[in-house]
Amino acid sequence: QDSSPTTFGKGLLNIVGKDSTWSSKVGARMQLLAIANWENSETDGLQNPEQNFLVRRARLKFDGFVYTPKLRYKIELGLSNRDISGGSQFTGNTPRYIFDAVVKWNFYENFELWFGQTKLPGNIERVISSGDLQQVDRSLLNAKFNIDRDMGFQLRHHFKLGKQALIREKFAFSQGEGRNVTVGNLGGHQYTSRLEFLPFGKFQSKGDYKGADLAREETPKLMIGSTYDLNKNAVKTRSNMGTYMFTDTGFYETDISTFFMDFMFKYKGFSLMGEYANRDADDPIAKNLDGTETGDIVQIGNGLNLQTGYLLKKNWELSARFTSIKLDENITGKAPEKQYTLGLSKYIVGHKLKLQTDLSYLTVDQGTDELMFRLQLDVHL
Amino acid sequence: QDSSPTTFGKGLLNIVGKDSTWSSKVGARMQLLAIANWENSETDGLQNPEQNFLVRRARLKFDGFVYTPKLRYKIELGLSNRDISGGSQFTGNTPRYIFDAVVKWNFYENFELWFGQTKLPGNIERVISSGDLQQVDRSLLNAKFNIDRDMGFQLRHHFKLGKQALIREKFAFSQGEGRNVTVGNLGGHQYTSRLEFLPFGKFQSKGDYKGADLAREETPKLMIGSTYDLNKNAVKTRSNMGTYMFTDTGFYETDISTFFMDFMFKYKGFSLMGEYANRDADDPIAKNLDGTETGDIVQIGNGLNLQTGYLLKKNWELSARFTSIKLDENITGKAPEKQYTLGLSKYIVGHKLKLQTDLSYLTVDQGTDELMFRLQLDVHL
Amino acid sequence: QDSSPTTFGKGLLNIVGKDSTWSSKVGARMQLLAIANWENSETDGLQNPEQNFLVRRARLKFDGFVYTPKLRYKIELGLSNRDISGGSQFTGNTPRYIFDAVVKWNFYENFELWFGQTKLPGNIERVISSGDLQQVDRSLLNAKFNIDRDMGFQLRHHFKLGKQALIREKFAFSQGEGRNVTVGNLGGHQYTSRLEFLPFGKFQSKGDYKGADLAREETPKLMIGSTYDLNKNAVKTRSNMGTYMFTDTGFYETDISTFFMDFMFKYKGFSLMGEYANRDADDPIAKNLDGTETGDIVQIGNGLNLQTGYLLKKNWELSARFTSIKLDENITGKAPEKQYTLGLSKYIVGHKLKLQTDLSYLTVDQGTDELMFRLQLDVHL
Repeated sequence: QDSSPTTFGKGLLNIVGKDSTWSSKVGARMQLLAIANWENSETDGLQNPEQNFLVRRARLKFDGFVYTPKLRYKIELGLSNRDISGGSQFTGNTPRYIFDAVVKWNFYENFELWFGQTKLPGNIERVISSGDLQQVDRSLLNAKFNIDRDMGFQLRHHFKLGKQALIREKFAFSQGEGRNVTVGNLGGHQYTSRLEFLPFGKFQSKGDYKGADLAREETPKLMIGSTYDLNKNAVKTRSNMGTYMFTDTGFYETDISTFFMDFMFKYKGFSLMGEYANRDADDPIAKNLDGTETGDIVQIGNGLNLQTGYLLKKNWELSARFTSIKLDENITGKAPEKQYTLGLSKYIVGHKLKLQTDLSYLTVDQGTDELMFRLQLDVHL
Repeated sequence: QDSSPTTFGKGLLNIVGKDSTWSSKVGARMQLLAIANWENSETDGLQNPEQNFLVRRARLKFDGFVYTPKLRYKIELGLSNRDISGGSQFTGNTPRYIFDAVVKWNFYENFELWFGQTKLPGNIERVISSGDLQQVDRSLLNAKFNIDRDMGFQLRHHFKLGKQALIREKFAFSQGEGRNVTVGNLGGHQYTSRLEFLPFGKFQSKGDYKGADLAREETPKLMIGSTYDLNKNAVKTRSNMGTYMFTDTGFYETDISTFFMDFMFKYKGFSLMGEYANRDADDPIAKNLDGTETGDIVQIGNGLNLQTGYLLKKNWELSARFTSIKLDENITGKAPEKQYTLGLSKYIVGHKLKLQTDLSYLTVDQGTDELMFRLQLDVHL
Repeated sequence: QDSSPTTFGKGLLNIVGKDSTWSSKVGARMQLLAIANWENSETDGLQNPEQNFLVRRARLKFDGFVYTPKLRYKIELGLSNRDISGGSQFTGNTPRYIFDAVVKWNFYENFELWFGQTKLPGNIERVISSGDLQQVDRSLLNAKFNIDRDMGFQLRHHFKLGKQALIREKFAFSQGEGRNVTVGNLGGHQYTSRLEFLPFGKFQSKGDYKGADLAREETPKLMIGSTYDLNKNAVKTRSNMGTYMFTDTGFYETDISTFFMDFMFKYKGFSLMGEYANRDADDPIAKNLDGTETGDIVQIGNGLNLQTGYLLKKNWELSARFTSIKLDENITGKAPEKQYTLGLSKYIVGHKLKLQTDLSYLTVDQGTDELMFRLQLDVHL
């Protein structure tokens, strides 16, 4: 029964309806980004500079409960051109405005049933909100392997093991072609399972799914997680992401599996996150009915991402990241890549108002190296 | 002078401005839908299953008054890909984000003048909000014959006849090519007239334009309505809906008329709705200047829709629907169709939070029958 | 610490967060427009009538400060099809939903640093909000020469000169291809400088950037401004506006300069605005590498716009406008145009609720004259 203004960072609106019959928190945010990058050749040094100003992300978010606190909802909308692009014949030839539209029902004890479109329980880096990242943007591992959002059902459960330890189980049954699809299921469905183990109990302020140890955990906190995702008769090159694999008669279908192993550790301002990803397919080379190759290739291979940061006084943070991507070169024709990133963040009001900058160096086997500098401002009402 | 939180279902915000100089109710809603359907062949039974998860609709709505309660406005925005698709060269090659943007001025006694884009006074089923339906979605009659939204002026008036009876008259002067058109009027304009007769007076809570008798009317309530719509020199196959009829030199133009006769009856939880629709055209076969046929055909014919429901205890409702569509087979080449639907709804908080499921069987003359199962969750803040 | 409802015209929401740590004003507005126009031939008089109903503009706006009043933000979103059209391969093949997304930091005394996407400091008429115009829409000068919005940095400063006079300096460093571009900078960057001189001090209620003297200035107020804009190696026909100049190998690049000189005068309900614009280019004729012309031409030339209005009792206003456009006819092949417009406005609640109508006559040298009548309703919550 309260709609009095909040402190900064608690939402544009934070309403609890009359008689506590519902609630809604409304948030708005934007990320303003400047990028400069160069190719680095052994002979000529830095060259071919490119520059980019972007409204990288801008979002509206509504979440809360209806009728009973056991029935929660979330709606998240994208506003920037980068957010909403990617429309196709499969999305009604229309930009993909909705990110999340999901209802979560705590129907029994620690069980929760989800219905709608939202993030799948994939790698930890993907599930951390883009507004809560430790560096300017997510890693290459995430770009190549993540399983993003989809539409369908999820079942979630958690329980305590002993005095401290916590285990979470997450299952998803999804359409398998990504978000905002309007044409129904193609090929088969997608099945995702994730198990999370927190030996020292919960992080403060949900810190397992936030970048940087802004809560400065007083005791060590750890989450270890693992996801196995099977997309039966998948029709896209990166499971439910990537491009559609058309054939002369329809779609090429093959089972694609994606496996993640990841962890997050935080203690007194120090944070360490690690991820391993592997993607495989029954037959990664797309073929027409007569066996000729269509040219599409499932992006199989693996990746490793390690990221660490230390929070200094006044919430300045130094961070570093190492990412290694090894797609199956014989099949995909893509050379291994490594990327090294150094980041500096000033969290003025936590993740709600922050300035981040990072410098990345990308090396490609037998290819052209690249240097990238980024500066980003986050404002999150 | 009040913005205190509302009970659930009264809007996300419900503001009355200082000195009652304005008001605004802000609502947000989403419909999450799961569909499964099969073809049913006499020889092989159910086959070719298809499955679809959808954010069927998601909307933001603003309505209220400005300056004086006699000057009301409404803005409704679509968010889901299904809501906003349908962009074309006629809409600036851009999705159709705005549903309603209309101002309503009660300039004299019972007269109201509308200006902007909103629903035309067409068949009752169309004007019932998609958030207030008795079954998961509207009928085939509506899909084939409705005249949806358009841009222009409307004049509305109502008066009492005797002690109880109420008569409403609605006129619209519109562009005639549907919503969100940016290129101006093509062909001629569209003229719509609707007359409504409520012999036993108003329904409770505007129940004449809501599915299901959630108000459990204590005395019988009836509305009988009839719409005649004339689209002069129309250029689309279903009046202001359907596809544009291009010729080699521009557009094929023909007068298209659409006639609706409908009623809504409610009493003690029982509801019955009926609709008859008829569409005709001066010359339904589109032709080039030299008389050769372009292939486009105005979808002339008629339809019948009957729908009934009974509200049980605790707001469970059983409903049934029968729809028959007979397009002119000689002209359109389309066989008659009949659809039978059984629905079950649980109105947890009226139409604001409800779970609906229905099972439909479609028979097509000389064609393939289809079975469809749907499950939908509505959350309306 | 206040979110009590506002009077009409002060925003849908007007929130000051707890402990004054942030603020947000949320506004929504729409413009409903009806147009009728005719060609006027010397022999046959008015002919070829066209008619158009439009949701001309519809917007959502968020602005306020975060953390400290010295750090302000603004987000403005377009909703109508006319607002968001113009998507291309350069905007992710996606409509251009975001107008403004900018953060403004008053880092030292009278200095302010801006970062993000917003209007450049161009001609006065462009920077006046489309919700604060004196007539139904902006002039032809603006249509041909304005430099609209772009992404990048701006630096703004102002100081007092003597007792009354005020000088403002505005500099912008931008990407140079307009708003919502996702592909980074093409050609060179764009550099904009603007100087404003207000000899009699500030206008009331920021009237220098609003149409009509609704504040009825008690002493004469004047702003004289001048903008010089240089778009290095620009790739579009109107600097950061217009169409891309493709060649067979990429883009044609040439330096384009745009110069504006403008003023606004207001006194006791009388207002007079004048603008002169000039555009030039190093080599306005786009060529392929081998010197053949591509067909694209930079729209060089100049324009003059004079507009005046007088506010009568009860906020009725009569206004008149004269616009002359002279593109370089040898280069662009476009004949000089003159447009005369008479306007009548009723400001019911200032610019927040107003009805405007105007009648325009366009003469084109050796071309067809046109007559246009417009009626527009503005509602601004």
